[in-house]
Amino acid sequence: MTTIHELETPALLLDSARMERNVARMEARARELGVALRPHLKTCKSADVARRIPSALAYGITVSTTREAEYFAAHGFRDQLYAVAVAPHRLARLAALVRDGVRVRLAADSADAVRWIDAAAGREGVVFEVMLEIDSGEHRSGIEPARPELVALARELADGRTTRFAGIYTHAGHSYGAPDVAGIRAIAADERRAVCTARDRLAAAGLAPPIVSVGSTPTATHAATLDGVTELRAGVYVFQDAFQAAIASCTLDDVATTVLATVIGHQRAHGRVLVDAGGLALSKDRSTRALDPARDCGYGLVFDASGREHFTSLRVADVYQEHGVIESRDGSAIDFGRLRLGARVRIVPNHACMTCSAFPAYQVVAGEELAGVWSRIHGWSGS
Amino acid sequence: MTTIHELETPALLLDSARMERNVARMEARARELGVALRPHLKTCKSADVARRIPSALAYGITVSTTREAEYFAAHGFRDQLYAVAVAPHRLARLAALVRDGVRVRLAADSADAVRWIDAAAGREGVVFEVMLEIDSGEHRSGIEPARPELVALARELADGRTTRFAGIYTHAGHSYGAPDVAGIRAIAADERRAVCTARDRLAAAGLAPPIVSVGSTPTATHAATLDGVTELRAGVYVFQDAFQAAIASCTLDDVATTVLATVIGHQRAHGRVLVDAGGLALSKDRSTRALDPARDCGYGLVFDASGREHFTSLRVADVYQEHGVIESRDGSAIDFGRLRLGARVRIVPNHACMTCSAFPAYQVVAGEELAGVWSRIHGWSGS
Repeated sequence: MTTIHELETPALLLDSARMERNVARMEARARELGVALRPHLKTCKSADVARRIPSALAYGITVSTTREAEYFAAHGFRDQLYAVAVAPHRLARLAALVRDGVRVRLAADSADAVRWIDAAAGREGVVFEVMLEIDSGEHRSGIEPARPELVALARELADGRTTRFAGIYTHAGHSYGAPDVAGIRAIAADERRAVCTARDRLAAAGLAPPIVSVGSTPTATHAATLDGVTELRAGVYVFQDAFQAAIASCTLDDVATTVLATVIGHQRAHGRVLVDAGGLALSKDRSTRALDPARDCGYGLVFDASGREHFTSLRVADVYQEHGVIESRDGSAIDFGRLRLGARVRIVPNHACMTCSAFPAYQVVAGEELAGVWSRIHGWSGS
Repeated sequence: MTTIHELETPALLLDSARMERNVARMEARARELGVALRPHLKTCKSADVARRIPSALAYGITVSTTREAEYFAAHGFRDQLYAVAVAPHRLARLAALVRDGVRVRLAADSADAVRWIDAAAGREGVVFEVMLEIDSGEHRSGIEPARPELVALARELADGRTTRFAGIYTHAGHSYGAPDVAGIRAIAADERRAVCTARDRLAAAGLAPPIVSVGSTPTATHAATLDGVTELRAGVYVFQDAFQAAIASCTLDDVATTVLATVIGHQRAHGRVLVDAGGLALSKDRSTRALDPARDCGYGLVFDASGREHFTSLRVADVYQEHGVIESRDGSAIDFGRLRLGARVRIVPNHACMTCSAFPAYQVVAGEELAGVWSRIHGWSGS
């Protein structure tokens, strides 16, 4: 196959030139902020993508599942932060990685987890490096920086014969809900302040954290300063998506991953164009629904097959398992001649992480030319 | 592995006893209604499941992608309805199936599609059997039964040297939005009336459709009569889910597929329990949001690991990629002792089709015992 017109649809397209631009921009951003960049590979789940991220090679990576940890370790990415509170049953698999020389830092935010980790390390004959998670205001997970157990747990890790206190990290996921760039910047300041407060308390107790880590694509993009922070984590920036464009992390011209779909139906009387990318291909992520109606992208924005022309009056208004319903977003009439039956369109999804997960591979494109296929992993078990 | 407690989480559990009960119930329902049952296998995407559905073996199946058509054909399911309007680029792959003796009926609802099918059949040296889709009120796809093109297209198919008119079908997907059982029954009546109107018009023109097909799990469950219909399609019924329970297609005790998750965090001050099943594992389907608040299941309902005890005051209120946030749904305090860190829970998802697609296999269970692994397919390309 040489062009996208020969692909089965729906297909996941990856514009590698855009991706490399996004990657370079965040590398420069981290340098400007004076921090290391530890890209989160839960978005791409692909060694082919990871190999094109300088910081992933030179510094380290972030992962969110044991499967990702094992997969990326097998592909040579051996400095990792597993940024989800660990569960006890995972520790045997993670110990095997440690024994193999992989530096995989575990995450914990409870005394129970610290105890599991310590016990498993003893059983497995390894030393686990552990990061404590800080809650910087989202209240999803982590320890609030002023809580007494923060210092107690760090001390337990530092004093343990089979554990090491590796640092602190936070994720200001509530930046996704900020109303505008000023709001994101304020949350970025909160995020930095939370880890700096935690760091100061720990340092005063003789437990200065080696790593002080923050990040999310919006706060990484808009933070005014990261003084006191040592590393930045972000993942979506590699691909970007309609949500990130809507909240000014990027423009629509930066979005690297899109879904190629074929027009399979017209319902002229009802102002609808049907495509063969539905809820499985696009995901049912509706994150832009939380924004004002002008920025609500439905289930995706519609471009021509080349990706150059944005049909600004359209969006994917509804999805079924294998059907996407394109409707007008502004009441204007649909030009059915531009979306004739059998034609192809590119759809910019709300949320790259969710959409990419539906596909077993990336079709790498330069315009309408196919340049290759990059693999990605799926699921949680296996290796 | 012998019990679910040894599984990596999140894991997709399939209670095969419940599944077989659901299967038997719909087989009996079809007999009672006097129609053939053509199960839709887009929900399970599994030959191991399909082999346990008598009608799939004895009569035929419904599929929604070319990949499903090829996969099930390779596993011996050779009487198929591909119930999504066909796109031109798929016809070469479908012709290969026809040449191989697979009876795969294509779907069309436009003159363009009939022309593509005819041209491709000539090119490929096959005869394509084609069903015309009828719009029974959802206005997603299909031809309204009174439209003149219905008879014209049926005639074109019947007269073509390389096409055969195989019948008509409709899907009353809007039954999912009915307020109650009476509403579903009314939509089931509309669904039947639409195809009967179409059938009568076609018969009057000498084009009596061999197959008259309707179906959705809600209308299949509640239709008062299917007089005039020859076959029934439904898919979700095999597994059922929280949405089907909420609209009275089943009870929660019938739900066969659940997600096993591990408790990885407590945010006691915020009334939250974190589990390691997030948006990727559960999907972001929020179909029960459209119901009244009492029936809104969030992203899923929470049971103990055995599946026997329903924590009726809880639901998965929010999801991130790998985190699910369980909160109280009625303001009552969470019993953190019942959901201790490291414990496991079963989550009943909103929508089985979406949730199952995240997993590469089913862990077949009888209570907490593991009875085997059943495979399923993922994606659109390959074979």
